[in-house]
Amino acid sequence: MPDFHLMRQLHLINDRKIVLLTLDGLGGLPTELGGPTELEAARTPNLDRLAYEGTLGQMIPIRPGITPGSGPAHLALFGYDPIQYDVGRGVLEARGIGMQVNKGDIAARGNFCTLDSNGLIVDRRAGRIPSDEAIPLVERLSEIQIPDAEVEVQHVREYRFVIVMRGEGLEPELEDTDPQATGVEPFPIRAREKGSQKTADLVERWMIEARARLAEEKRANGFTLRGFSTDPDLPQFPEIYGLKAACIAVYPMYRGISRLVGMEVKNFQGDTPADEFRVVGDIWEKFDFFFVHIKKIDSMGEDGNFMGKVDIIETVDEALPLLLDLKPDVLCVTGDHSTPVRLEKHSWHPVPTLLWAPATGLPDSQTTFGERTCAQGGLGTFPTIDLMPQLMAHAERLEKYGA
Amino acid sequence: MPDFHLMRQLHLINDRKIVLLTLDGLGGLPTELGGPTELEAARTPNLDRLAYEGTLGQMIPIRPGITPGSGPAHLALFGYDPIQYDVGRGVLEARGIGMQVNKGDIAARGNFCTLDSNGLIVDRRAGRIPSDEAIPLVERLSEIQIPDAEVEVQHVREYRFVIVMRGEGLEPELEDTDPQATGVEPFPIRAREKGSQKTADLVERWMIEARARLAEEKRANGFTLRGFSTDPDLPQFPEIYGLKAACIAVYPMYRGISRLVGMEVKNFQGDTPADEFRVVGDIWEKFDFFFVHIKKIDSMGEDGNFMGKVDIIETVDEALPLLLDLKPDVLCVTGDHSTPVRLEKHSWHPVPTLLWAPATGLPDSQTTFGERTCAQGGLGTFPTIDLMPQLMAHAERLEKYGA
Repeated sequence: MPDFHLMRQLHLINDRKIVLLTLDGLGGLPTELGGPTELEAARTPNLDRLAYEGTLGQMIPIRPGITPGSGPAHLALFGYDPIQYDVGRGVLEARGIGMQVNKGDIAARGNFCTLDSNGLIVDRRAGRIPSDEAIPLVERLSEIQIPDAEVEVQHVREYRFVIVMRGEGLEPELEDTDPQATGVEPFPIRAREKGSQKTADLVERWMIEARARLAEEKRANGFTLRGFSTDPDLPQFPEIYGLKAACIAVYPMYRGISRLVGMEVKNFQGDTPADEFRVVGDIWEKFDFFFVHIKKIDSMGEDGNFMGKVDIIETVDEALPLLLDLKPDVLCVTGDHSTPVRLEKHSWHPVPTLLWAPATGLPDSQTTFGERTCAQGGLGTFPTIDLMPQLMAHAERLEKYGA
Repeated sequence: MPDFHLMRQLHLINDRKIVLLTLDGLGGLPTELGGPTELEAARTPNLDRLAYEGTLGQMIPIRPGITPGSGPAHLALFGYDPIQYDVGRGVLEARGIGMQVNKGDIAARGNFCTLDSNGLIVDRRAGRIPSDEAIPLVERLSEIQIPDAEVEVQHVREYRFVIVMRGEGLEPELEDTDPQATGVEPFPIRAREKGSQKTADLVERWMIEARARLAEEKRANGFTLRGFSTDPDLPQFPEIYGLKAACIAVYPMYRGISRLVGMEVKNFQGDTPADEFRVVGDIWEKFDFFFVHIKKIDSMGEDGNFMGKVDIIETVDEALPLLLDLKPDVLCVTGDHSTPVRLEKHSWHPVPTLLWAPATGLPDSQTTFGERTCAQGGLGTFPTIDLMPQLMAHAERLEKYGA
């Protein structure tokens, strides 16, 4: 059975609206035995009301025990099996800042770094140089010309940039040059498969030029490249589900993945949850599906900042009436993965999930939104790729299967 | 995607230690409505404390509703899909007692039985003759020589033995000769596939000789053969997970399956839970993963002995501090399958599972270890083959998947 066969076959068009509110890295852990998680510690009267009126559950992003990166975790939220659909970091970043990556183009994520006099990496992020220092360097790299390929370089933010190479016969099977460590040299560029050798040679020529142009810099005198990838040619979300879909996200990577699945990515001012919810209001009549992404919960988790994570969850809760006033038919509040403050990184733990659909939902016995109530919720424990069909169903956007 | 791809790709080496304590046949049933199961009836203060601090769940060994044999149930515990990896009883028993079974060798499990004057089976286990009576008979069978193949016969215990046949062009696709019933003759040997006909002929020649040598016996005047099989050439557990793995088990079959997946099988004196836990302590520094198998819980279930099963569970609980004093990073207490006293046999019921990982686990709301608390536990209900990735995750032995 081809993927998405059921969704393509059964989806209906109606005027019900679905909001998928993704709190990046939502899931957490208690910091002491018997203590609350971040979400449990947060004061969330609005989310708790939705929990009382709605149905809870917990989702497994990839497979049990597997900690997801952001790309696979979001693919799963959109219903794509993240093991089958492998999207590289390069193309995600490139599309996130609006660069064109066609089938056969090669994109990679670049980081400026600091090298010592022996060429060893001393700072993998070049001291997190500010954007205004990095932009002129990126402009310098943009001037590089190599035979047989066109290379576009664009700045992302701080020490991060993207390169996209376009030409005949390019293949993305290249190893990262980022050793993910200090005290060592960046790796040379290496083809993982024979067919990518020509591409490796071209990247090597570009790298020689690029090194020469950065050599005199103090902090950003080196760089690494990773996530070589091309357009993954993903099945398109609007066509699969019959949904006009909008992405409201601040960070490039989430904008990138939304673009790759065919969502319309909105530009807007501001970066608070309230700012994002107001954008949803502005475009409410024009779309059926709203992917709203809140990044900073994950960032606080990675920073090990328990109260910071609690604060941002509370900020989301306070702003929530802006969304509720729009009277969505289906509202799902969940995360792409867990990022427990205790671990300071993404984790494999199931993700707390709240599904609120006042006209069609089956409320369970849970009355607050937290990891432990979700573990006992009416939706049970299920793979994240099974979320979208349930959102569709609660919006009555799926026909009956079979007679 | 090949099996184990994710585990091979993502596993990390660190110094975290994982103990998989397998209480064979753990799951049970109440004997009356409203009554406790065996596990619920047992006084288990240590396990209950771990349940409070840890996370519960229930596992489906093979597929919902499918009652597993011991071989498939253990393969699933080790992460091997037991439908795909089919390991014959013969090779399990042979490897369990340390016999060599190479690819192309054929192993079968033998039972002595009692035949009446018409050749019909009256006792399928020859009155469970003691080992000292059976050993001379096995020696007599070892002397049999047939052309074109070498046959090794070894005693297991009581009425049980193993034969291994070695030669050119042997194939294991043979039907059991054990009719699993009394009042009938043992089946003749039959090839299930054309390619196995030569092997069937060789086994037939051996059987004729063997029958002649047993004919004058009173109790063990016949035998049956089953589980014809060869080395299944399983992917190796240490290589899949990056774990140095030890097996601490008393019974040959569990030692056999551990050997087949590449674990190091320890020899030791004694057969109580405390004896086994002390062995874990003795080898603690040398391994990363400890498969500890307690058999007698299952035996009590099969004997229909409720209080016997309760007693052994309590014995495990009392000895548990021996394990806990070693400070494992991850301790999982579960079974390979259920063996309810009420049914006196293996069953399909989900298996209660306790996962304790003080540094990385998400404690749920459960406070005692039992079937009904496990059904409400934070791990949810999941296939047994998804256990190993979760143990690996909680030991922080898996990298993130994707960018």
